[in-house]
Amino acid sequence: MGNPAQFNLPETIALLERTPAAFGALLRGLPDIWTQRNEGGDTWSAFDVIGHLIHGERTDWMPRAQIILKHGETRAFEPFDRLGHVAEIGGKSLAYLLDEFDRLRQENLTALRTLNLQPEDLARRGRHPALGLVALSELFATWAVHDLTHFHQVSRVMAHQYRAAVGPWSAYVGVLQCAGHSAPQRGGDR
Amino acid sequence: MGNPAQFNLPETIALLERTPAAFGALLRGLPDIWTQRNEGGDTWSAFDVIGHLIHGERTDWMPRAQIILKHGETRAFEPFDRLGHVAEIGGKSLAYLLDEFDRLRQENLTALRTLNLQPEDLARRGRHPALGLVALSELFATWAVHDLTHFHQVSRVMAHQYRAAVGPWSAYVGVLQCAGHSAPQRGGDR
Repeated sequence: MGNPAQFNLPETIALLERTPAAFGALLRGLPDIWTQRNEGGDTWSAFDVIGHLIHGERTDWMPRAQIILKHGETRAFEPFDRLGHVAEIGGKSLAYLLDEFDRLRQENLTALRTLNLQPEDLARRGRHPALGLVALSELFATWAVHDLTHFHQVSRVMAHQYRAAVGPWSAYVGVLQCAGHSAPQRGGDR
Repeated sequence: MGNPAQFNLPETIALLERTPAAFGALLRGLPDIWTQRNEGGDTWSAFDVIGHLIHGERTDWMPRAQIILKHGETRAFEPFDRLGHVAEIGGKSLAYLLDEFDRLRQENLTALRTLNLQPEDLARRGRHPALGLVALSELFATWAVHDLTHFHQVSRVMAHQYRAAVGPWSAYVGVLQCAGHSAPQRGGDR
């Protein structure tokens, strides 16, 4: 049970297609204390994270897949802009962002299914500006795990708001021991 | 934005009431690779976690609240059985467990609302078998943060399955750097 699994496209899509509804079920209509507050400084709130996921749908995953399929190893991806969400979220409501994320994700998954990719396509490689050669299957696996890393982050950011409110239980609740795992100097969660 | 918030009962209930739907939206119908696999050894799968959440609804949160309201500091809580989920999950499907969690959570929140607790009630204290005196508000805050700790855990357990599949991106995806934060010898996530 502990051995990592092989990449599988339908299993990856099954996860990707549930993410917008899962964030929606958790965050939609929730009081601002949970969605608009961050962990201090320039860290991200749940609201910021949804903006970041939108920006990824627009500029990262499927656009990079298209570059691999069209140019292979000859053309490096555009670097992803970790502050790209700032333009996405200005003046928007969380409900709007959740709808937009859902719409863009569905659109991207429709495009992905339409490609009808075969094992030899998934083995094709592209060039990441920092990581070097990466396979198309690795890009899609990372798309799914990137969703999970932001569930992980959002649950931590939300829990942080009740760090004092839980009193002596703080020692027992694992998420409050998490100091985060991103490292902005090397691209953070990307 | 970084300062922890004060406890607020309606804001706590708003989070608690969304948890079953959020886990449902993420996990329902998802292939077994994501829901039935764990991180190796006797660690928990997402399926196990839902069983644990069910067991908490039955034996932990509202039963402990009732002990505080009835007995105050004079009677310690029953210790929570971290393996109590084993009896909950035997022979059950994930869909069944998700429904059961949803039903029990709604039932408990109805009971909580019916109590119509006032600030002086929330300040009442009970006796935790290991932590000593705890306030009723701290119990309810922990109920919510406990949900979040299991979102945090489930996202990590799911991401683990694609640890190899993401290839060189593993260094960039924060959730794959998380080694977990539970410490079973002192009660783990509880």
